[in-house]
Amino acid sequence: MKVFGKTQIVSTLNLELAIQRLEEGFIAFSAGKVQVPPVQAFAFAQANGDCCVKSAYVEGSDTFTVKVSTGFYDNPSNGLPSNDGLMMVLSAKTGQPLALLQDEGWLTCIRTALAGRIAARLLAPRQVHAIGILGTGMQARMQLEQLGAVTTCRKVIVWGRNQRELEAYKAFASGLGYQVQITHDAEDVARGANLIVCATPTREPLLKNEWVQPGTHITAVGADAAGKQELDAALVARADRIIVDSLSQCSQYGEISHALKAGLINAQQLAELGALLAGRAQGRDNDDQITLIDLTGVAVQDAQISSCALACLDG
Amino acid sequence: MKVFGKTQIVSTLNLELAIQRLEEGFIAFSAGKVQVPPVQAFAFAQANGDCCVKSAYVEGSDTFTVKVSTGFYDNPSNGLPSNDGLMMVLSAKTGQPLALLQDEGWLTCIRTALAGRIAARLLAPRQVHAIGILGTGMQARMQLEQLGAVTTCRKVIVWGRNQRELEAYKAFASGLGYQVQITHDAEDVARGANLIVCATPTREPLLKNEWVQPGTHITAVGADAAGKQELDAALVARADRIIVDSLSQCSQYGEISHALKAGLINAQQLAELGALLAGRAQGRDNDDQITLIDLTGVAVQDAQISSCALACLDG
Repeated sequence: MKVFGKTQIVSTLNLELAIQRLEEGFIAFSAGKVQVPPVQAFAFAQANGDCCVKSAYVEGSDTFTVKVSTGFYDNPSNGLPSNDGLMMVLSAKTGQPLALLQDEGWLTCIRTALAGRIAARLLAPRQVHAIGILGTGMQARMQLEQLGAVTTCRKVIVWGRNQRELEAYKAFASGLGYQVQITHDAEDVARGANLIVCATPTREPLLKNEWVQPGTHITAVGADAAGKQELDAALVARADRIIVDSLSQCSQYGEISHALKAGLINAQQLAELGALLAGRAQGRDNDDQITLIDLTGVAVQDAQISSCALACLDG
Repeated sequence: MKVFGKTQIVSTLNLELAIQRLEEGFIAFSAGKVQVPPVQAFAFAQANGDCCVKSAYVEGSDTFTVKVSTGFYDNPSNGLPSNDGLMMVLSAKTGQPLALLQDEGWLTCIRTALAGRIAARLLAPRQVHAIGILGTGMQARMQLEQLGAVTTCRKVIVWGRNQRELEAYKAFASGLGYQVQITHDAEDVARGANLIVCATPTREPLLKNEWVQPGTHITAVGADAAGKQELDAALVARADRIIVDSLSQCSQYGEISHALKAGLINAQQLAELGALLAGRAQGRDNDDQITLIDLTGVAVQDAQISSCALACLDG
């Protein structure tokens, strides 16, 4: 069994190949061709930590993947990162463990950012006049990095609570060549941008319906667990197109679940990203529609990004 | 993250410490102090393979464990073993991966054999006049090895279907100092032995009620998945004491489930091994009773054996 560290993985991953593999994965998932057993979740109350084990097998693939992710939120006070993670790739032909990818959670971050890139390519309005980012963390950065590949817009409006983190984000985005506006008021983002990515762990909706302009596309990646919510439910109800990564998962938690439970939308209005990619669901029809995608994260992404990473490492 | 291979693991594991850790684990499990998320199972139809991911955390422990086991039944025709497996030990304080134990399934075999040893110590009649073994495989061997620690009996009657494998088992058991009788008729085992271990993957009951003598203890370890059955349901119904490793799991599959579903026994007759170890359930009262334990295998055993193995490796 080969063991690879984060540096090797980051330096060899071919992003174009990864995009292709992720798209194939979403399509297979929506076609019912992915085995996704139930997520295993642990809570470590005393250590303020949690762990989840996600596994997936895309039928017909040579490999399958078991991912372990941890979040221990007191780690930074001991000089350790909060999040850690690894993926194990095994042969679907013989069961043999092929590789241990000690990516420290990076592959999860990049597969999420790449899903945001795929969504923007499919759903953003033709003319993006400004990108809006809610959040200043790792995922908020990686989303902006990836959007550069699918839009020529180089203006970004960034919302955050903490001034120092906003300043740091500004430096980061300027380094990518963006003209950067920072704000503590999410309304500035909603009124100024028409391609918005929400990447915060908030439990109180940040983006209000009345602020959002016609023609906007919104990618929500933050609500990856029960109780998290970034969007006003009325905004979800107003969207002309609602795409989700997983109908079953997004009905349980994520942005969509709140509007579903409140009866503001019904399940028939939803379509999966895999169906959109396969041409079996409708995307944006015109530049006045509001489109919304809720990316809660699905294990098929882990299976696809890890097999892709291993192929690149084996080069 | 440290990586250890099978040879290192086998050569350092302290069996007495492992017994102690397993007993503590069974007790914690029966006291509701173990987090055991749902098992993740894959089926690889084309490759005639399967995989399961079992994870457990004993509350208060320093570590938790994720185990991946595979069975690919066409592997031997390609010169590979059918079964493979590994365990990952992570810190329950920081989430960091501590060790990868590439035990190739050995830790699962030994924790199962040690559970059989614990069961025999608690439930076997005072005078064992012969040990009976159904099966000639790896687990049938390891069970006999471990029984040597809890009984002075050195006579064994072994049942198997294949003469060559029976002969090989005879050579193995003779090497351990046993007087060995081999047979193709399970009745010989039932009539001649009063400490019987069933370690076969059969789907047709092998051990008939009318053959089994009063005072016998039976340990059944083979029925580890749906559809498998080694014991006549009438024999289960006749047992004076029925112990299980997990009430919920044994109600779903394993020896007990068949008798439960047929209405021959009721759930109130069952007690968990952890309750027996903790003195909260009744074991054998006299040397005429028939006792039975159904060991379907629980993830807490994996958590305990892997943390013990790691302690011995670090020792």
